[in-house]
Amino acid sequence: MNLNNEFSFINSIKSHVKLNSYIGIGDDCSAQIVKNDKLLLTTTDLLIEQVHFKLDTISAYNLGRKSVEVNISDIAAMGGYPDNIHISLAIPKKLKSNYISDFYAGLFEVLNKYNIKLLGGDTSSSKNDFVINITVQGYVNKDKIKVRSSAQAGDYIVLNAPIGDSALGLNMLLNNVNNPYATDLVNAHNQPTAHITEGQFLASYSGVNAMIDLSDGLMKDLKHILMASNKGATIHLDKVPLSENYLSSYDLFSKNKYEYAISGGEDYSLLFTVAPEQHKEIESSYFSHFKKKLYIVGEITPGHSLSFYLNNIKKNINFIGFDHLTNNYKESNENS
Amino acid sequence: MNLNNEFSFINSIKSHVKLNSYIGIGDDCSAQIVKNDKLLLTTTDLLIEQVHFKLDTISAYNLGRKSVEVNISDIAAMGGYPDNIHISLAIPKKLKSNYISDFYAGLFEVLNKYNIKLLGGDTSSSKNDFVINITVQGYVNKDKIKVRSSAQAGDYIVLNAPIGDSALGLNMLLNNVNNPYATDLVNAHNQPTAHITEGQFLASYSGVNAMIDLSDGLMKDLKHILMASNKGATIHLDKVPLSENYLSSYDLFSKNKYEYAISGGEDYSLLFTVAPEQHKEIESSYFSHFKKKLYIVGEITPGHSLSFYLNNIKKNINFIGFDHLTNNYKESNENS
Repeated sequence: MNLNNEFSFINSIKSHVKLNSYIGIGDDCSAQIVKNDKLLLTTTDLLIEQVHFKLDTISAYNLGRKSVEVNISDIAAMGGYPDNIHISLAIPKKLKSNYISDFYAGLFEVLNKYNIKLLGGDTSSSKNDFVINITVQGYVNKDKIKVRSSAQAGDYIVLNAPIGDSALGLNMLLNNVNNPYATDLVNAHNQPTAHITEGQFLASYSGVNAMIDLSDGLMKDLKHILMASNKGATIHLDKVPLSENYLSSYDLFSKNKYEYAISGGEDYSLLFTVAPEQHKEIESSYFSHFKKKLYIVGEITPGHSLSFYLNNIKKNINFIGFDHLTNNYKESNENS
Repeated sequence: MNLNNEFSFINSIKSHVKLNSYIGIGDDCSAQIVKNDKLLLTTTDLLIEQVHFKLDTISAYNLGRKSVEVNISDIAAMGGYPDNIHISLAIPKKLKSNYISDFYAGLFEVLNKYNIKLLGGDTSSSKNDFVINITVQGYVNKDKIKVRSSAQAGDYIVLNAPIGDSALGLNMLLNNVNNPYATDLVNAHNQPTAHITEGQFLASYSGVNAMIDLSDGLMKDLKHILMASNKGATIHLDKVPLSENYLSSYDLFSKNKYEYAISGGEDYSLLFTVAPEQHKEIESSYFSHFKKKLYIVGEITPGHSLSFYLNNIKKNINFIGFDHLTNNYKESNENS
């Protein structure tokens, strides 16, 4: 079974679903009308040992933190705020009780930070792998929700933070690389933060048309927007924001400066598309609010092609999605 | 880590949760106020290969069916109706694509039967075991919800169906036993049905005080009610409803006629407590509606002890919970 195409799976089940008062299946969250002005957002994510994490590369505490942050990042991507979680754990015998206490300490740190309630759960044993499933419920005002399917031709494609650090950090962990930048890069991978406030801020602008969080990497997640919106895009590689840590270390793993940035996953930066005439106002207001920059990396186009340019020269890109732990970049069908 | 006491785990996390507009943590579902008269019910359950099921004792189709039925049974236990599910799957390479199609065919059969929507999900790979997590959202009217904590001293303890068949069926599967009753008993285990309509019917009576579905077995699930309600109980073993199939086969596995009935899990019958003065009316109305009987098996008592009687003689019970697949009955602390 080909598991790499969750998107086609979701498309194949869409036809089974009669959606009346429901928005979205195949978006970051489902959205249901529960009150006149409020939508209930729900998202569920499974983290499984040896696929999404390894016990020897992340502490129990950070795993607890990360389990919540990566889940609520989907709520951020729709412009909402997280309200509560339900958690399921399957715990193998090899994990001692202090491991589980540490895991919960990290989890509760994040719950307390955002004032998220733990409303329920299910705990069982596991014969092999540690399994974590978290379901997050949140809310968003009906007129604020941002979905993947609303990108407009001509929109700028914008990132709210540098990308690629998490994938580099994972590679440093898996290959036991240590250099002066390793700590920050590994932290980017093991201690990601959901952009909850930023997502709500951006969602308050009508000019922000589509939004997604970068869990699978710029290329794969942008494609989710393009497919849902029935549009194409141009990306200017030289405008993709890269951290100093990234620039100092990417060449340990790739000859291509941009490979980990556009194919590496788990950055949880927000990617959104915005009407050009509103961008200046949003950018300046975002800066006064967060003291952080926004980065225009491309434009939405009519048609269905995704093109990459480097210093205005069109480039072939021969890598695509990011397969989390295996970090297995697959050949793509992209043509110049 | 001792995983057998989910209840104490839930108690330990309760203190972390500030519950304002929330009812229940540690009940079958959490309940949240979303509209004036309606509560949102949410429940999540993890099914993991080798712990909750084995690939060689249940078909993919029946596993798909059962995954939904056992989850929505928690909604039935609170008197609600299921509205939608979110599903997470972690799929090992050993499972071929037709296995997953069959699984979904079974799942959709049940979704269609109850008009439940599939609103989202998450699919990944797994190195070892097939993992299924389903989160169900449902609704119940605020004045109809039944919780575990409302049992009153003097209440009858009532079952709506015979119990023990599922645990016997599981043992027949695990031990390759075949007799004329095996098919029905195995079906009780592999094709359980949630009592959704029955739960809603019972919830419409104010005299029904507490309710739970039997997933872990009569003894364990009754204890959930007793602990939540701060009460005790008396059970009359001779009044526990047993099927003809059960009576014909229990002695293949146990010398004690009642062992599998009171300690066996996964029957998904409803157990509720009812004010004696309302019981006759409910019983007769239930019979005209469903053409099925209700069974009084005991009474709620003040205090904290759980006692068992057989033909009015007090009995020691030296088996307790049901550990699903391992079917491992543990010594209890029950005293006569």
